[in-house]
Amino acid sequence: MKPDEVKVTFQPSGRSVYVLPGTLLLEAAGRAGIILQTPCGGKGTCGKCRVMVEGQPVLACHARVQSAMIVDVPASSMFEARQQILTADSGALAAVNPFIRVVPFALPAPSHGDVRSDAERLREVIGAKVSMSLDVMREIPGCLRSHAWRGRAILAGDRLLGLDCRVENPKVFGVAFDLGTTTVVGTLFDLESGKECAVASRMNGQIAHGDDVISRIQKIRESPAALARLQAAAVSTLNAIIEEVCHQTGIAGSRIYEVVVAGNSTMQQILLGLDPSALGEVPFVQVFDRAITSPAVGIGLQANAGADVYVFPQIGGFVGGDTVAGMVASRLDQQQTSTLLIDIGTNGEIVLASGGKLYAASTAAGPAFEGARIRQGMRATPGAIEKVILDEDVKVNVIGNVPAAGLCGTALIDAVAELLRTGIIDETGRIQEADEVPSCVSDALKRRLLPQGHEVCFELVSAADSAGGEAICLWQKDVRELQLASGAIRAGINILLKRAGLQAHELGEVLLAGAFGNFIRRNHARRIGMLPPLPTEHIRFIGNAASLGAKMVLLSADERAYAATLCLQTEHVDLSLDADFQFEFSMAMMFPGTEADAW
Amino acid sequence: MKPDEVKVTFQPSGRSVYVLPGTLLLEAAGRAGIILQTPCGGKGTCGKCRVMVEGQPVLACHARVQSAMIVDVPASSMFEARQQILTADSGALAAVNPFIRVVPFALPAPSHGDVRSDAERLREVIGAKVSMSLDVMREIPGCLRSHAWRGRAILAGDRLLGLDCRVENPKVFGVAFDLGTTTVVGTLFDLESGKECAVASRMNGQIAHGDDVISRIQKIRESPAALARLQAAAVSTLNAIIEEVCHQTGIAGSRIYEVVVAGNSTMQQILLGLDPSALGEVPFVQVFDRAITSPAVGIGLQANAGADVYVFPQIGGFVGGDTVAGMVASRLDQQQTSTLLIDIGTNGEIVLASGGKLYAASTAAGPAFEGARIRQGMRATPGAIEKVILDEDVKVNVIGNVPAAGLCGTALIDAVAELLRTGIIDETGRIQEADEVPSCVSDALKRRLLPQGHEVCFELVSAADSAGGEAICLWQKDVRELQLASGAIRAGINILLKRAGLQAHELGEVLLAGAFGNFIRRNHARRIGMLPPLPTEHIRFIGNAASLGAKMVLLSADERAYAATLCLQTEHVDLSLDADFQFEFSMAMMFPGTEADAW
Repeated sequence: MKPDEVKVTFQPSGRSVYVLPGTLLLEAAGRAGIILQTPCGGKGTCGKCRVMVEGQPVLACHARVQSAMIVDVPASSMFEARQQILTADSGALAAVNPFIRVVPFALPAPSHGDVRSDAERLREVIGAKVSMSLDVMREIPGCLRSHAWRGRAILAGDRLLGLDCRVENPKVFGVAFDLGTTTVVGTLFDLESGKECAVASRMNGQIAHGDDVISRIQKIRESPAALARLQAAAVSTLNAIIEEVCHQTGIAGSRIYEVVVAGNSTMQQILLGLDPSALGEVPFVQVFDRAITSPAVGIGLQANAGADVYVFPQIGGFVGGDTVAGMVASRLDQQQTSTLLIDIGTNGEIVLASGGKLYAASTAAGPAFEGARIRQGMRATPGAIEKVILDEDVKVNVIGNVPAAGLCGTALIDAVAELLRTGIIDETGRIQEADEVPSCVSDALKRRLLPQGHEVCFELVSAADSAGGEAICLWQKDVRELQLASGAIRAGINILLKRAGLQAHELGEVLLAGAFGNFIRRNHARRIGMLPPLPTEHIRFIGNAASLGAKMVLLSADERAYAATLCLQTEHVDLSLDADFQFEFSMAMMFPGTEADAW
Repeated sequence: MKPDEVKVTFQPSGRSVYVLPGTLLLEAAGRAGIILQTPCGGKGTCGKCRVMVEGQPVLACHARVQSAMIVDVPASSMFEARQQILTADSGALAAVNPFIRVVPFALPAPSHGDVRSDAERLREVIGAKVSMSLDVMREIPGCLRSHAWRGRAILAGDRLLGLDCRVENPKVFGVAFDLGTTTVVGTLFDLESGKECAVASRMNGQIAHGDDVISRIQKIRESPAALARLQAAAVSTLNAIIEEVCHQTGIAGSRIYEVVVAGNSTMQQILLGLDPSALGEVPFVQVFDRAITSPAVGIGLQANAGADVYVFPQIGGFVGGDTVAGMVASRLDQQQTSTLLIDIGTNGEIVLASGGKLYAASTAAGPAFEGARIRQGMRATPGAIEKVILDEDVKVNVIGNVPAAGLCGTALIDAVAELLRTGIIDETGRIQEADEVPSCVSDALKRRLLPQGHEVCFELVSAADSAGGEAICLWQKDVRELQLASGAIRAGINILLKRAGLQAHELGEVLLAGAFGNFIRRNHARRIGMLPPLPTEHIRFIGNAASLGAKMVLLSADERAYAATLCLQTEHVDLSLDADFQFEFSMAMMFPGTEADAW
């Protein structure tokens, strides 16, 4: 803990975080992994982000941390409760209505007047159209006869997954996975009540084979055997999570009757053993686009023998199932105004809803935001500088309240935005020498400008204060990497706007989703030109929308149909094929000259 | 060869048989396993059974064997050509239209203007609704790219089984199986041309586990592990046949894309690993009735990895897929008059079509007809007396032209019918003593009546002429067994007639099918009361209808739909539950007093 940082603890989760005084409670909560609802965009008008501080209700979007504090977060303010909000808003998710259904039955035993086959006897209760695999059918005669013709049938749509004739009637579960390039999160649900039972996450085991999708695709293109290895790594990761959520709740893996997975095109294809090589060269082609439903045990998942894995539909190229899941969760097609959904993870996906149409694109924006290619960059893990504020001098916030070891993506954006504001970095991205900076810049800041050959770097943390005994700096090359990443996203946005015949100022809202998107400072992202010039309150955080979409599809057959419909409505815009992209990209790499320009 | 027998050789098959002079050519052909068409019932009016003898056309239903001869059988007279006849008759089987389809494709390669997924690119040619398993989808990217986006798609209905991108485009095959309790016959077809390529048969490997379905069900009821053993025995038998037809034609098993199986309820269930125990006690209940389509490799069949096994729908109890296949082949629901279909194999199945309705029943008639429970009985294999004629003395025909070793089912019926005619057996089935028989009976015949305690047996072949040095006789108990078997069938017929509100004389036709049915002497079967009193020409042989039905379903998706429709239209009559059955059975066990009574 640095002298000026204070501890904020959130209840009932008990998670705590150290932040600088003056930090918005909303931001502190986000830092602790708690995403609050902000449908008004943080204007303070909707009241959805209300939390309790010392027994008093405050709005997290306006209240600031002053000193060490304990914050009670009511469930109704959590973003995960948004599902219920959506119900009220759209009427689409009227109730928990999973694709997996449990139908109790008590059949008449065969008699002289009733000699129907076992299968038909069962179909009278579970539905005449229900299909049964041979494996399931083999269980039927014994199960029915040994349990007095009573039990529960477990169905996936119109397909019988199995019978459960045990007296105790154990519950039926499903797992929704957000299969990221870096991180995998799985959530266990009771499919009858819709209740969330446990959650667990793991690093994607494929990381050993490459940090990003391109390097993993390259591995597979170089050696056909790599596909099986990468698939096994993904399956192992999912199984480790399944084991953990089963362990947490004390249930057997055989009680899991469905696994839903949302991931990008590369992750989804590798998980299914589908060669992603064609994503490694123009024109980036997917193997499939419609959702895939296939036996879970067929790819090695530890679930019920009859369970299926449902893998999200994909839109095209690198616009995959995670984007579709985000569209499902955000109800993107039902927004009142033209709306952008931006999911910034290892890749950046952008979807524009405008005039009843949907346009989707993917940009290779990610690595810089995850600390890759940044000289002293690192992931947002303990030791990472995650926030940078400039006034008379530099203030930083370090994750985990330990000495700084490097900087993560949000700090990179903060640092550049702040240096732009103070004039230490110019529109072209060049870090000025000490004698070039505006006169209003303090001496303390000027002293941090360290010449490095022909260039200059900016010291964020001194060698004495750092973990490694080496100063942590923002380097000129880091700024260039940010320009590339930010420019790619903004160029993508501009191409989509152009495709829809829209000007940036006509945008109603920007929804930020994804692992990175939710920790970004909106004004800073706007300041560097990554986001279009919208009022901050029209830039909303919507949490891990891909994960939420996966959960919604697990819990509702209607959401599954909705996902398919959204895909059919969406036009995939391949930026690499757009004649204007290179021009837009070049333009977007330049920083807006002033905050006013950014507007 | 006995002194008075002559050799008849049939071309082009080259099969030959030794028969007594005076035998109908039709019967000699049947004995050689060649079933000729007799739509007129042998009246000599339709001309369908025309064969060539010494360059002259004769009708096999009227011409008799006089001396050793060679008979040329045109394909158009063969029963197997009946399929084309059905086409003309009913219009139902308009063309070869297999469920398995081959669709050639030449796709545009992906380009900047066309970045659809591989799956959608393919679906444009093979159909938007086509589903693809993950296993098949995994093959797609490599197959398309390594063969310039050309090849052939192999489809089962709306499901993609696989791609074939090889230049030589090898053919696509299917196998139709008649899975009998005793014998299994498989026929290999080219699914594109519909051409029959090879046929092979084997004893059902389950025979080691019991002769009839009841003993095999009992084995499974006694030990749960027996089901797997019996299933493995059936699968091995099918695989041996697949190997043989592949060997004959030089094709690989992986070219087989569908396997169709028609068998009785017990055989079908065991093949699929479905416990038949409930068929072992009242009220005989099947596990399934709708047709089952399941991966062929899933039950261990040696076929293409994507191939399915289609197992016929079942009607109820012991009325299984073989009966449905027979109904398909005989177009039973489309007959102009009330018609009985009787399939006598190890079991006896009876279906009555009358007034737009179908009624089906099964009787435990078989064992006696297969030589079981007959003191000197044997199957219809070399050494078996298969025909008995009485005039001044006894004449017999022995299969394979070797010394007699026993008698088979047809000889049993012949012997009893002839002894009834001559008054040596009375209406109750008792074999008279020599001094009780009518005076017109020759001394030669009387000398064959040998007292055995309180009973009498009738010597068919003397010890000197037999293979084992022991006289071959018809024993009193043998007559009782025949009364039980024949009575069971006739009682079943009577119950169905009663159910349909029909008198026996209102029957238009009787169609005889099955391994045994085709070798029976119609007048003798009628004489002992097994068949109702119809003119002989209204009793038609239709060959192995179950096998033909299986082939038709392999070759035509329409026939598959027709099989399902027939099942839905058919009422299963469980004879064991019919209040009148015991009475009808008792009555039917008595022989008709005279030929006139039989009429």
